[in-house]
Amino acid sequence: MDKSRLEAFSDGVFAVAITLLALDLVVRPPGSGHSVAWQLGHQWPQFVAYVVSFFTIGIIWVNHHALFKTITGVDRTVLFLNLSLLAVVVLFPFATSMVADYLTADNWDASVAAAFYSSLGVAMSVCFTLIFRWSVAGNHQIVPIPPDKVRGASWRFSIGLVFYVVAVGAAFVSAPLALAINGAIAAYYVFEHTPAGHLHDGERSGQPAEPTE
Amino acid sequence: MDKSRLEAFSDGVFAVAITLLALDLVVRPPGSGHSVAWQLGHQWPQFVAYVVSFFTIGIIWVNHHALFKTITGVDRTVLFLNLSLLAVVVLFPFATSMVADYLTADNWDASVAAAFYSSLGVAMSVCFTLIFRWSVAGNHQIVPIPPDKVRGASWRFSIGLVFYVVAVGAAFVSAPLALAINGAIAAYYVFEHTPAGHLHDGERSGQPAEPTE
Amino acid sequence: MDKSRLEAFSDGVFAVAITLLALDLVVRPPGSGHSVAWQLGHQWPQFVAYVVSFFTIGIIWVNHHALFKTITGVDRTVLFLNLSLLAVVVLFPFATSMVADYLTADNWDASVAAAFYSSLGVAMSVCFTLIFRWSVAGNHQIVPIPPDKVRGASWRFSIGLVFYVVAVGAAFVSAPLALAINGAIAAYYVFEHTPAGHLHDGERSGQPAEPTE
Amino acid sequence: MDKSRLEAFSDGVFAVAITLLALDLVVRPPGSGHSVAWQLGHQWPQFVAYVVSFFTIGIIWVNHHALFKTITGVDRTVLFLNLSLLAVVVLFPFATSMVADYLTADNWDASVAAAFYSSLGVAMSVCFTLIFRWSVAGNHQIVPIPPDKVRGASWRFSIGLVFYVVAVGAAFVSAPLALAINGAIAAYYVFEHTPAGHLHDGERSGQPAEPTE
Repeated sequence: MDKSRLEAFSDGVFAVAITLLALDLVVRPPGSGHSVAWQLGHQWPQFVAYVVSFFTIGIIWVNHHALFKTITGVDRTVLFLNLSLLAVVVLFPFATSMVADYLTADNWDASVAAAFYSSLGVAMSVCFTLIFRWSVAGNHQIVPIPPDKVRGASWRFSIGLVFYVVAVGAAFVSAPLALAINGAIAAYYVFEHTPAGHLHDGERSGQPAEPTE
Repeated sequence: MDKSRLEAFSDGVFAVAITLLALDLVVRPPGSGHSVAWQLGHQWPQFVAYVVSFFTIGIIWVNHHALFKTITGVDRTVLFLNLSLLAVVVLFPFATSMVADYLTADNWDASVAAAFYSSLGVAMSVCFTLIFRWSVAGNHQIVPIPPDKVRGASWRFSIGLVFYVVAVGAAFVSAPLALAINGAIAAYYVFEHTPAGHLHDGERSGQPAEPTE
Repeated sequence: MDKSRLEAFSDGVFAVAITLLALDLVVRPPGSGHSVAWQLGHQWPQFVAYVVSFFTIGIIWVNHHALFKTITGVDRTVLFLNLSLLAVVVLFPFATSMVADYLTADNWDASVAAAFYSSLGVAMSVCFTLIFRWSVAGNHQIVPIPPDKVRGASWRFSIGLVFYVVAVGAAFVSAPLALAINGAIAAYYVFEHTPAGHLHDGERSGQPAEPTE
Repeated sequence: MDKSRLEAFSDGVFAVAITLLALDLVVRPPGSGHSVAWQLGHQWPQFVAYVVSFFTIGIIWVNHHALFKTITGVDRTVLFLNLSLLAVVVLFPFATSMVADYLTADNWDASVAAAFYSSLGVAMSVCFTLIFRWSVAGNHQIVPIPPDKVRGASWRFSIGLVFYVVAVGAAFVSAPLALAINGAIAAYYVFEHTPAGHLHDGERSGQPAEPTE
């Protein structure tokens, strides 16, 4: 199995899932009793959830690429882990629709919906962490991480996981708070590299060191 | 992050979004009280909006390619800008459905729907302009634009933005007029290059200058 | 604009459109008054239309590839023609659903639905013919067709067009007949090359002629 | 026809079909009479069917890649077989939705739904077997299988087919049992290679034998 075909297939799944997010937005045809402006305004939870999920999947895609760029090849184990990761990603349109519908319900239902939504982030982070550990344990990294830095890299990898767990808990305080934490995690990762990303940068910055033609 | 994988992912999103545009076309099964011919004819706003949006996304795809072909690589900033651009593109099926439903309503609702639809063009143009400025400001261009030509190129880039703003305003005069302006912009870009396209052509037309084998 | 990125984008649109064909198949949940077996059997027009459309899009994809393999590059004209071709392809899920719903209605509605469906084949063939003529007229072919063979190649290209026109006419005799003609055209092209395919084969069979290292 | 473009198109179809699986999951908006937790729990058949189908398509994708990696090129015959395989894959979202809706119905309907679902596995296995036989009969394999091993490879190829036939039969005993067998087949193939995969591994393990620079 080529790494490149795994990436191409994963990219396809990311692209479809991210596009299906918008299927939740609907304005009813004329005669439905509400103005277009009212319907658009009334769907602000759908728009907010759309943006949060769009950037969440976008960041998963970026980190997926950064992580797989550091590894040498794929075997059946990582294939299974990657399919598990994709199975989580594909649930985002469903969960986004649900959390948006219940965001302003302000009751137990809203908390359950937001906790389910946030738990996708937990599951996704677990998949990423397992893929990272697989790459360390099986010597699948193009540029192996020095043993004394594995712990640090693992820890940084788990930051997202920790915050998603916090979001699950926060859902039982306030659904909008949980969604806001999900948005903050996405915003953080837009501008911050994963450890894998850092490693990759190190790898590349090392390349200019080959001075002779 | 490879430029090529960003392009492949973006192409996937463009392909899905452009295909979802047709989901708005529906003929009801037998027994619904209207003939097929009547239903097809009655959906002319859906067909017109479909064609306009199809070529609009098609042109965004073309210009996206032309722009990214001129740049050397991608960083987190352009990644964020590109995701923002895609988040706008993915809203087109929703907005197309809405503007088609209300195109002949001839009231405030039609104007709001057409203004929302046209504002996607504004948001898309803003994203393109920001990506272009990022490429100029950060020296990310493969063939840098001469300083005295940056202003001209920026201006030509803003033409689409200006016309989309005009379309937003026109929506409050007439929704069909706003849709017609969107269609005219798409038609214009089918046969006209963006500045980035011109640059790229210049770059390529320079290549035949290498005469010796 | 690279030919390869046009092909990748087109492939994406083909893949999404061909997959959306199956969205028309639905079995209602328990309690809807009909057994699963009855519902599956009752949907035979949907299954037949699904298979015909699946292979029709499949063959469009094959011929698209065969045609673009013979050309040297793309310009704005062929870009517009290709987008027009894709805009026709994307209508297939809609038209397939409609023709299946009305296939057994046996009245004017069935004829209109089948004529609309068949006219997509006409429009698709016209786009292919125009792209072929563009390649001949503008010297965009990798291996130019000898002038005395252009007429023959054009004619063979028009065979599909002729049969789709026949299918449009046949729709007013019998909708199932029109669908059968569409199926026969797809079956024909599965095992028969387009002229472009033949050209390409000639091109490749010429390559082994280079004997020296 | 390039093998690579056939693979890219197939990957696109796989990616869309696997993502559409989640469209069956729905939680109704507030006011529908059931809590979110109840609705999520009540949809356990949908979640189970989703996971089984997700890994089934995922494994089809892996095996598709493993099989096509062993062949030299594609002709019209394998093109037709591959389109047939994809036409089966695209039916999975429909069949998954149906089997989930009827999984707990515990009557003839449940059996019909589960038998239809399992028969997709049969049809898929038949397509794979035909493609494999085509590659053997027509000398399309990059590394031909020794004649004395063809029978064994064919047999191993048919294991999946046999188990899917068993699942069809089991559906008339118990729909959940049939779904469990489908899940077990997917789990088996996640960690077990197809014969094609083994062949490919053999091919690669031979490469390190080239010791000199």
